[in-house]
Amino acid sequence: MSEKTDLPPTDRTRLRRLRERGDFSLQTIYAILDAMPLCHIAYLGERGPVCVPTLQWREGNHVYWHGSSASRAIRAAADHDVCLTVSLLDGFVLARSAFHHSVNFRSAMIFGRPTLVDDPERKLARLKAFIDGLYPGRWDTLRPIDGREAKATAVLGMPIDEASAKVRTGPPVDDEEDYTLPIWAGVVPVEMRLMNPEPDPRNLPGLDAPEHATSLKIG
Amino acid sequence: MSEKTDLPPTDRTRLRRLRERGDFSLQTIYAILDAMPLCHIAYLGERGPVCVPTLQWREGNHVYWHGSSASRAIRAAADHDVCLTVSLLDGFVLARSAFHHSVNFRSAMIFGRPTLVDDPERKLARLKAFIDGLYPGRWDTLRPIDGREAKATAVLGMPIDEASAKVRTGPPVDDEEDYTLPIWAGVVPVEMRLMNPEPDPRNLPGLDAPEHATSLKIG
Repeated sequence: MSEKTDLPPTDRTRLRRLRERGDFSLQTIYAILDAMPLCHIAYLGERGPVCVPTLQWREGNHVYWHGSSASRAIRAAADHDVCLTVSLLDGFVLARSAFHHSVNFRSAMIFGRPTLVDDPERKLARLKAFIDGLYPGRWDTLRPIDGREAKATAVLGMPIDEASAKVRTGPPVDDEEDYTLPIWAGVVPVEMRLMNPEPDPRNLPGLDAPEHATSLKIG
Repeated sequence: MSEKTDLPPTDRTRLRRLRERGDFSLQTIYAILDAMPLCHIAYLGERGPVCVPTLQWREGNHVYWHGSSASRAIRAAADHDVCLTVSLLDGFVLARSAFHHSVNFRSAMIFGRPTLVDDPERKLARLKAFIDGLYPGRWDTLRPIDGREAKATAVLGMPIDEASAKVRTGPPVDDEEDYTLPIWAGVVPVEMRLMNPEPDPRNLPGLDAPEHATSLKIG
């Protein structure tokens, strides 16, 4: 996939304002999805829009998420329009006027109609990719998934073909005449840090944290 | 507000599964909103649901957000049903089976119909509360907001009266028979860290970062 590949903007993804912050390259969209499993999904519930947090993962040009087969958020999303958004807060931007305060961030929005991954083998392959995407090699070390668990788990996926990213970086941008004011301006960066693994108190003696629990990266 | 105060669950906020994770106390909901300005708002756009990231702030029992007066996300949300969700990812939970992998998190969902804060004085008071909520005392140190800026900024607010929180903490919960397996399980905690302020290269000489830029807290 060339880094020049752009998705065509649609009336849902085109930025009306601050267009310089928009980015339709799959490279940028993929990088944001890959940096943060937490996403929020907007779907239309019985009584209006619902915004539900869940974890997403990407395989090629598709994004997936999972949930209980009985979940409202899964049933209401399958075969219906949704918007999946991943956002990373990278910093607070303090300007010389209230108006130009901002945040540094990366966000990606994907519109589409997700479908259930019905085929049992394909569903297991997706779940393995999810676990191994976060924790390389972990799937094969686990007590194998059983039929009841697989049945109770629904996986939704959709192609990344109507999507856009929005990114802000750098210092505040103030009105030119305000740069002469003696007001401190700058950025307070935000970082997500993964801390040392905390072993389950019920681990068998002698088990060390595997590398996939200490090498996890997000942000 | 007593810490026992509960909101009545509605058909939008009642948890159908894992009810032990649900919390309808305003104390919990307020704490989540106050811990993380980043939120996601689901609204119904012309072509289906949209999930847009923005910053929220709380004053008493109301939640507010702002945007350009010309923004689609503001115009489509005003006087319409929305769902505002704040989520904090607190850790990755590695279990002995794929099925019991999870994340530790705090999330709050607020349903309602936001209204525009039209009155100019009230709008300015809300924006001041937003800035000073993040950076105590900063508003009065800034170049004052002008009429054009105030007009270009829309503030939406809604009461927190149909809302719920969902929280997961602690180690994995595995099937009882799986605790005998020699599989490392545990939690990889996630923390949001605010880093040292980066002064704008165009700051006037001799300006030190104010306390409100070094004492910021989130997470």
